Amino acid sequence: MRILLIGASGHVGRAAQDALAERHEVIAVSRSTAPAVDTTDEASIEALFAEVGEVDAVIVAVGSVPFKPVEELTRDDYRAAFLGKVLSQLDVVRIGTPFVRDGGSFTLTTGILAREPIATGAAASMANGAVESFVIGAAPELPRGIRINAISPTVLAEATGYHDAFPGFAPVASDVVGLAFVRAVEGVGTGRVLALD
Amino acid sequence: MRILLIGASGHVGRAAQDALAERHEVIAVSRSTAPAVDTTDEASIEALFAEVGEVDAVIVAVGSVPFKPVEELTRDDYRAAFLGKVLSQLDVVRIGTPFVRDGGSFTLTTGILAREPIATGAAASMANGAVESFVIGAAPELPRGIRINAISPTVLAEATGYHDAFPGFAPVASDVVGLAFVRAVEGVGTGRVLALD
Repeated sequence: MRILLIGASGHVGRAAQDALAERHEVIAVSRSTAPAVDTTDEASIEALFAEVGEVDAVIVAVGSVPFKPVEELTRDDYRAAFLGKVLSQLDVVRIGTPFVRDGGSFTLTTGILAREPIATGAAASMANGAVESFVIGAAPELPRGIRINAISPTVLAEATGYHDAFPGFAPVASDVVGLAFVRAVEGVGTGRVLALD
Repeated sequence: MRILLIGASGHVGRAAQDALAERHEVIAVSRSTAPAVDTTDEASIEALFAEVGEVDAVIVAVGSVPFKPVEELTRDDYRAAFLGKVLSQLDVVRIGTPFVRDGGSFTLTTGILAREPIATGAAASMANGAVESFVIGAAPELPRGIRINAISPTVLAEATGYHDAFPGFAPVASDVVGLAFVRAVEGVGTGRVLALD
């Protein structure tokens, strides 16, 4: 398969790449690659797909959201969380659908905050829940047998800088995260949220 | 209790009002009441709370989202869904928190599309999922014992105009929806999504 991996520089993106690169052609892009992409800019997404062309699968492992106590979150913070984590991924699906081959797939990235709270995580929870329900709602209407799923991991074992923010959460190993991407890309499921708690 | 009900003119708002008005003082507002409120405009929300003052509970039963096949949904449609259903409710929480008495509550309104797809419902699914996960994420951080929950009904029995869009979904009676609001307002739960499937 020819797989476009957007967000290759993060922990989740690397886990996906490590799990898929041996058996597939993985085009791994980020803000600092050539081609580069900024998923908050629809023109940048359009330019990426115009350059890359047809693919069998698109993986999106991007998303920045503000982390603040709920009483400090502003209207702009919520808008930034929506743009950075939700609209960015939805725009990749919207703009990328014509470039995905029949029976291909999108795999988006969410996280455990959709279903579990942590301190300062309310905006992140909102954004993750938005993407997960979008996957459920959009799956039946995507054309030509194109599938869509979300990988929703807890904190990654390799992301040690975040472990203190997830007290008592058992971190998930990168190879387990990678397997979930393999299942989403090579499997048959659609409209699924693959939770890795 | 003194309860501010925003979105009193819709089916869900009326169900909440019918269930609560006998035992509580319900201040029921919408776009066309006096005072009026437009929840997409933060200045309008601020003016509402300044006029109403302290309350024990806030119920939000608003939210308009575009319904279109997923291939026709535009970037502006997703932004409209976020503003109309998500940011509007989050802004009521953000602006309204100082006006809610110790141990009071917010009750937001979502719906079954957060977890079940219907045709043309992808943007609505996204918006509902965003609000439900926000409730989970925000609940532990609200100050002074203030609680927050979401009521997430399937299509309402009285909303007959929507029944064709929900084939095979058993509609929920308005008094059952009303009971869920009673449970959220008078009960002790927080961070809960009360699903009425």
